[in-house]
Amino acid sequence: MKILILGGDGYLGWPTAMFFSKNGHNVKILDNFVKKKIESEENVRPLFPQIPLAERVELWNKNVNSPIKFVFGDLLNHRLLYEVLKDFKPEAIIHYAEQPSAPYSMRGRDSCYFTQNNNVLGTINLLFAMKKFSPDSHLIKIGTMGEYGTPNIDIEEGWLDVEHNGRKERILYPKKPGSFYHLSKVHDSNNIEFATRIWGFRCTDLNQGIVYGLETDETKLDEKLTTSFHYDDVFGTVINRFICQSIIGQDLTVYGNGTQIRSYLNIVDTIKCVNIAVMNPAKKSEFRVFNQYTEILSINEIAEKIIESADSIGLKVKSKSINNPRIEQENHYYNPKNTSLMKLGLNPVKINKGILSNMMKKALRYKDRILKSTIMPRIKWKKE
Amino acid sequence: MKILILGGDGYLGWPTAMFFSKNGHNVKILDNFVKKKIESEENVRPLFPQIPLAERVELWNKNVNSPIKFVFGDLLNHRLLYEVLKDFKPEAIIHYAEQPSAPYSMRGRDSCYFTQNNNVLGTINLLFAMKKFSPDSHLIKIGTMGEYGTPNIDIEEGWLDVEHNGRKERILYPKKPGSFYHLSKVHDSNNIEFATRIWGFRCTDLNQGIVYGLETDETKLDEKLTTSFHYDDVFGTVINRFICQSIIGQDLTVYGNGTQIRSYLNIVDTIKCVNIAVMNPAKKSEFRVFNQYTEILSINEIAEKIIESADSIGLKVKSKSINNPRIEQENHYYNPKNTSLMKLGLNPVKINKGILSNMMKKALRYKDRILKSTIMPRIKWKKE
Repeated sequence: MKILILGGDGYLGWPTAMFFSKNGHNVKILDNFVKKKIESEENVRPLFPQIPLAERVELWNKNVNSPIKFVFGDLLNHRLLYEVLKDFKPEAIIHYAEQPSAPYSMRGRDSCYFTQNNNVLGTINLLFAMKKFSPDSHLIKIGTMGEYGTPNIDIEEGWLDVEHNGRKERILYPKKPGSFYHLSKVHDSNNIEFATRIWGFRCTDLNQGIVYGLETDETKLDEKLTTSFHYDDVFGTVINRFICQSIIGQDLTVYGNGTQIRSYLNIVDTIKCVNIAVMNPAKKSEFRVFNQYTEILSINEIAEKIIESADSIGLKVKSKSINNPRIEQENHYYNPKNTSLMKLGLNPVKINKGILSNMMKKALRYKDRILKSTIMPRIKWKKE
Repeated sequence: MKILILGGDGYLGWPTAMFFSKNGHNVKILDNFVKKKIESEENVRPLFPQIPLAERVELWNKNVNSPIKFVFGDLLNHRLLYEVLKDFKPEAIIHYAEQPSAPYSMRGRDSCYFTQNNNVLGTINLLFAMKKFSPDSHLIKIGTMGEYGTPNIDIEEGWLDVEHNGRKERILYPKKPGSFYHLSKVHDSNNIEFATRIWGFRCTDLNQGIVYGLETDETKLDEKLTTSFHYDDVFGTVINRFICQSIIGQDLTVYGNGTQIRSYLNIVDTIKCVNIAVMNPAKKSEFRVFNQYTEILSINEIAEKIIESADSIGLKVKSKSINNPRIEQENHYYNPKNTSLMKLGLNPVKINKGILSNMMKKALRYKDRILKSTIMPRIKWKKE
């Protein structure tokens, strides 16, 4: 299958590209390296040293039958996007090419503007490129469970049947996002649903939980094939941050009272889910939403599991509550559904002591690269 | 009161500015003249000849105690916006400064990109300018009833109480917009609701019906104070288009079967509603939504009223159905609520033969300026 991966240099994009290439697909990746630029701006860096994407692709391609092709480019450059879709005519487009940090989007006007510009208008260009050159491509867009917020009702998969004053309607599930980054994803979903409705596209919106994990089957093949793993306050997600805090002996920083419940999945399950979506495309004119997560835990439960796993390999660590830099509900109902991917065969990896302590053991080898000053939250949601 | 009017050169912005100035308020207007630019691009022009804004302001200011101040500028220029908010510290900000044409947003990639960029990112800049320099200003944002689409349930004012699996939540009323322009307004509302929630702003979102009308009490004072009235396929709304078609003897162009029901209000009621919003500000941290329309009619009912009114002044006109350039439901339920503005004292003008025939009489004086080639829809929603 011809698969175009937008944002193919990222934490998820790069392992996804290797996975599909290994499975014999014709993979092309596009990236504008904007995450690398933000790393420099914010003085953060991935845990593992990475070689440049072009070299990584070259290295990977030595041992595969179906090599990855790489194009440098930006979704804001619509002419390039037009050329790529015209020439490649992908059967699936996996769209990871968005600024992925909620804190970065809240840092100030410039980074908020950048986020919504890059994400929303990049996706607009993609929709018009599809309309013109590849209307039958299956668009797989990475959204986030954070778009929903923490509503007091069960979170369905993208759509909700409501009854009001005795009449019924099926509506896009109401969103209550918690940052300008999450809002950019909501805007994208709304734009994509409309394009699907009027132009007959086939689209899958994957509302993904918080991803954790250091490696996939493909990154393990060679240290130089590592993915961009972050633990910092800009790009780091909570489990990944706690892993790094454990190995440097820093208290696990629980934002607020830690009763916030969130949904999670392992990076290897991200790849599996995206593969399931690719292999089971949406129908024409279908805007399909899957909630892509495998388990639900509070921040305190995560911290406990980390502490226990650290202890099992001789690392003593404790958690401490710090002022929550975000504005979010700390005590709330949370009951999202995730049956669609399960029904399509997802067999998930669950968080356990072995997985977490193995992450710690691997991370320990790069302990000296951890920049301690980048872990505490430097960006606050509140008005100063 | 210090009132900042963004988009103060427009069909609604200019009469709004004169109204508040006449009532003794300290009015500053900002405009980037982008509508004038699009007029040139699309080869359309307002029915009445207009003098440039700076001259109009000068003329208006000769006879008032509270002169209007005008600043040329673009919301995308955040430095200018910062300066204006810092210096002027408005008590109310009336935000009309958006590309207002649904067809233009659907013309192609460039005009869609322009629309979402101008509207969404301009509003982002405004939110950050408010955060920094004027967090207590009451933001009054002009939205549209078109954001809701035509759902099968009653349309409430911005929020909806839902019960799902035995639990309750109050959600932002689900939107199903019908163009990339309408989507830009939905994105704005989502961004503004979030900013209000986390930064404690006071905001009113006015979801306005389709405005019709040639003049207000202030534009009537001098022909040179006329507002930008459009009848064309880019900026013209249905009643205004039908008025012009009647006077040139062109069949009224009903899109599709004409059973689409929409909400309407007279331009004089727009001014009244905005005034009510200004005089009754939202509370701190309140994102308040008013549905701003005064009556509901199908396109066929509008056409009948126009035909009857034309007949009463000796103009013979008929309607004809043409292929609908838009993709929209033609047979649908439609029951929006508009009690909030009524409760606050709105006493609306209703469509009647007198109003419509007076519009025709006034428009007749400019009959020779009507560009017949700009009336039929040139932009289609469907994939070519």
